[in-house]
Amino acid sequence: MASRTYKEILANIDHFLIDADGVLTDNRVLLFPGIDPVRSFHSRDSYALQHAVKEGLRVAIVSGGRSQGMEECLARLGVKDRFFNVADKSAKLDELIASGLDPSRTAYMGDDIPDLRAMTRVALPCCPADAAEEVKAISRYISPKPGGMGCVRDLLEQALKARGRWLTENAHTW
Amino acid sequence: MASRTYKEILANIDHFLIDADGVLTDNRVLLFPGIDPVRSFHSRDSYALQHAVKEGLRVAIVSGGRSQGMEECLARLGVKDRFFNVADKSAKLDELIASGLDPSRTAYMGDDIPDLRAMTRVALPCCPADAAEEVKAISRYISPKPGGMGCVRDLLEQALKARGRWLTENAHTW
Amino acid sequence: MASRTYKEILANIDHFLIDADGVLTDNRVLLFPGIDPVRSFHSRDSYALQHAVKEGLRVAIVSGGRSQGMEECLARLGVKDRFFNVADKSAKLDELIASGLDPSRTAYMGDDIPDLRAMTRVALPCCPADAAEEVKAISRYISPKPGGMGCVRDLLEQALKARGRWLTENAHTW
Amino acid sequence: MASRTYKEILANIDHFLIDADGVLTDNRVLLFPGIDPVRSFHSRDSYALQHAVKEGLRVAIVSGGRSQGMEECLARLGVKDRFFNVADKSAKLDELIASGLDPSRTAYMGDDIPDLRAMTRVALPCCPADAAEEVKAISRYISPKPGGMGCVRDLLEQALKARGRWLTENAHTW
Repeated sequence: MASRTYKEILANIDHFLIDADGVLTDNRVLLFPGIDPVRSFHSRDSYALQHAVKEGLRVAIVSGGRSQGMEECLARLGVKDRFFNVADKSAKLDELIASGLDPSRTAYMGDDIPDLRAMTRVALPCCPADAAEEVKAISRYISPKPGGMGCVRDLLEQALKARGRWLTENAHTW
Repeated sequence: MASRTYKEILANIDHFLIDADGVLTDNRVLLFPGIDPVRSFHSRDSYALQHAVKEGLRVAIVSGGRSQGMEECLARLGVKDRFFNVADKSAKLDELIASGLDPSRTAYMGDDIPDLRAMTRVALPCCPADAAEEVKAISRYISPKPGGMGCVRDLLEQALKARGRWLTENAHTW
Repeated sequence: MASRTYKEILANIDHFLIDADGVLTDNRVLLFPGIDPVRSFHSRDSYALQHAVKEGLRVAIVSGGRSQGMEECLARLGVKDRFFNVADKSAKLDELIASGLDPSRTAYMGDDIPDLRAMTRVALPCCPADAAEEVKAISRYISPKPGGMGCVRDLLEQALKARGRWLTENAHTW
Repeated sequence: MASRTYKEILANIDHFLIDADGVLTDNRVLLFPGIDPVRSFHSRDSYALQHAVKEGLRVAIVSGGRSQGMEECLARLGVKDRFFNVADKSAKLDELIASGLDPSRTAYMGDDIPDLRAMTRVALPCCPADAAEEVKAISRYISPKPGGMGCVRDLLEQALKARGRWLTENAHTW
């Protein structure tokens, strides 16, 4: 097993668990009074998310934070599994496995300590270029892109290319 | 044809189709609850847009996204053709051609997959420094500036200089 | 005394005074009409703040500015001592000492001139990589991270590791 | 005259005209529906502005744009001369001269074409590191800092140091 490359593992992955802060975002949250911290997305990540969903990959967002704005955006992109306010991500993984998720066909992209335990339990733990050292140490794939700068696009693009589903007819419209 | 430099092509261009996310912006969208994702503009792009309009170039924005804030800003800059929520940009190009646009006198600056097909149909496909690889591969001109950091200014400035319309009397006021 | 390394000093520190602008933030404030300037936090700093509080370190924020959004966020992270609108930080340090704070067990992370006097009065003056020259000159520790990019995480992580309190059971949940 | 260094000129300057976009900001404006484009300030520029005012320098902001948020912030910093919506900056300079401003004792920090004519009429034209080429070409001083990253601080700090007014008693409070 350990000798397989991440590309070989990725060809067998159809479920992606993706952390929000530091992965879909550059870790910054804007602090306005009275509302959830405001995050930003990178539009090439957004493109990849909606295209991956169209092409049949299962994508779930698992975040410890709250963000109504991000939730609304993910819904528009067609991402159905959106888990926010998740205090314990490994416990959330237990729930998902109980609901049928197969960890041997799952990738998890995280960037910080609260992601560590869940990451070690799936087939393809991966992270952005600027993840915490502890997370890099257990990742099978480290994207050349930092969080919020296209690391999710990089991962999903490779997964779709491995399936010949990147530049499909769907790809040209949004 | 293929041996002409982009500068030679540009001297003959008077219509500019410009994508929004990743070209006028750095790809980031801020996610607030209840409103369109919020984008930012670079003020030197804004300066070039309003000056190009004053000097008689036709500029149209063609975006797959929604952004009321961006729409209002473009209106203030004098950009009359503002197309948002465009799911299929090549189909939009068909419409524009039907209304009289001449693709042999048109440049298109895009940065990602949904721009590809429309870009290949105009005389001068071009892109920011950080465009997707597929877009760079078909571009006749790649700006040294990334999206949202002045790539639109770079393109329009060169077009206006080619016409001797850059540092005109108009240029000193806004 | 002067020959002790910052790591030796840090092992004895249990109180952290932290400036906001330029330390927890990258110095930028967004200017909206009618509300306090809006700042952003880095989520790895936020993680470290709440974990440090859980592990028993005392953390206080001492800021010259006003920011209701930042206040609310710090409250959610469990930071109890939040001092904003502090015109004179050295006078604030007098107050804190009068209330029992021991400067010989205190670190102060600041980045600009208004932090200078208070910094020189505590055991461990420290600063982000991009602090003002005058602040760097009197700091015992200069983080490799700039303000708003994880310098607070860097400091608190080292303090918690020195106590064996970094990857505790608490660390895996938020 | 031409052989004087910018430091020699600066020692004689007591009035500073400062452009907003691209000088006090990094050129980005956030586009929200229904309000002026939103800009950000750098807190070390803000510190320098309020300290310069306290120490008796005259500072005026001359901007082509509109920004209620920036106006309110400048008012809090003690900057009394705040000129927004200025379509023609050279005409505004005429007005200021008619009101008593002496161009031989004035610096102007700008970054783009609309600043050019006014800049050439004062003793010390200067600009941020990332100004437009045309502006750099006529500047006597180019700050090592880009717009929105401390170029105004850099200029005012040098002016105050030249007068021995940088680390005054005032400097330690805000």
